[in-house]
Amino acid sequence: MSQDAVVPDTREALLQAGRKLFSDKGFDGASVRDITAGAGANLGAITYHFGSKEALYEAVVSSTIAPLAERLMATVGGPGDPLDRVEGVVREYFAYLMDYPEMPRLFIRSLLASGMPPAPAQEHLKRVLAALVGLIREGQAIGRIRPGHPALMALGLMSHSLHLTIMRPALARMAGFDLDDPTQRGIALDHIVRTVRGGLALGQEGPA
Amino acid sequence: MSQDAVVPDTREALLQAGRKLFSDKGFDGASVRDITAGAGANLGAITYHFGSKEALYEAVVSSTIAPLAERLMATVGGPGDPLDRVEGVVREYFAYLMDYPEMPRLFIRSLLASGMPPAPAQEHLKRVLAALVGLIREGQAIGRIRPGHPALMALGLMSHSLHLTIMRPALARMAGFDLDDPTQRGIALDHIVRTVRGGLALGQEGPA
Repeated sequence: MSQDAVVPDTREALLQAGRKLFSDKGFDGASVRDITAGAGANLGAITYHFGSKEALYEAVVSSTIAPLAERLMATVGGPGDPLDRVEGVVREYFAYLMDYPEMPRLFIRSLLASGMPPAPAQEHLKRVLAALVGLIREGQAIGRIRPGHPALMALGLMSHSLHLTIMRPALARMAGFDLDDPTQRGIALDHIVRTVRGGLALGQEGPA
Repeated sequence: MSQDAVVPDTREALLQAGRKLFSDKGFDGASVRDITAGAGANLGAITYHFGSKEALYEAVVSSTIAPLAERLMATVGGPGDPLDRVEGVVREYFAYLMDYPEMPRLFIRSLLASGMPPAPAQEHLKRVLAALVGLIREGQAIGRIRPGHPALMALGLMSHSLHLTIMRPALARMAGFDLDDPTQRGIALDHIVRTVRGGLALGQEGPA
């Protein structure tokens, strides 16, 4: 391995170790010593590659949410029926949370600590939220999506996957439902898709 | 005030201080010193009234979830259309989380730390979950609720209120939506009720 390749590897290893430790222990709980040890790097590696622990945290959050935000923006802005695009967003979000369980943990730790999502994620979130609100308004305008508060509807799309991800071990032990099993994962995704579509479709609430 | 009344007051003050500090800082982060100071009690008060910090935590969790579990069980077991009873459950859960924002924080801290809800809450949760599964099966049997996995549907009922509660400060700052305002709180509850009914009602998913 050339020396050129070592520098990006260490940087990537620090991001991975930071993602795991910040999500497990929070920003304050994850020490520089733990993160550098987890990355197999020396104690000065965070300063060398990122400048500070705060800057590493920022890079961890950004690198975790940015690829998801790009995918969701592409689906929201793509062609097709608004409700189908909403379904596409929900499917991508679910798949991403299954692959990156650290993401909801980073977010929820920040919400518990400060009441807000991690600062480096807020611009991504605002952008995705605004795009989803636009998509929901589009669906409402053509009578595909029922009347309702677009921002609450947009946020609500995210609640099922987030809830199941956070409950993942409890779901297995208390309800015998294992999200690591591909069949059960498919059942969970189908449940979320049907629930979201039913919850948004026009005139579908059932008689009161 | 008679001396008889002082003992229960200290006990109640410890429960309240414990509820706040365990939800803000987690079990490990909330010290005996902080809790007794918050309750205006002496350092030995937790040992005197509960036996240990662990036992206080258990009493905090139980006293927080037990009244909610009773209310939900009564609504699930009450008369009326299954979908209307589901709506009643969702309304009570939302109102309870608005009044006791410590509850979801206690739960989520435990889920982050151990992957499981707080141990003293698990029996309550299992009981409510089993009752909700029965209610959903009843609705499915008479064609009021669509086919689907009853345990996922039951857990999903809880996700919207939980999500909005955890997002409460972010909702105000990022979406201008203030759950402390009675009108906006009503809009949020209406949103949740319509979303849940639409997501569960038979044949309501909208064409794929």
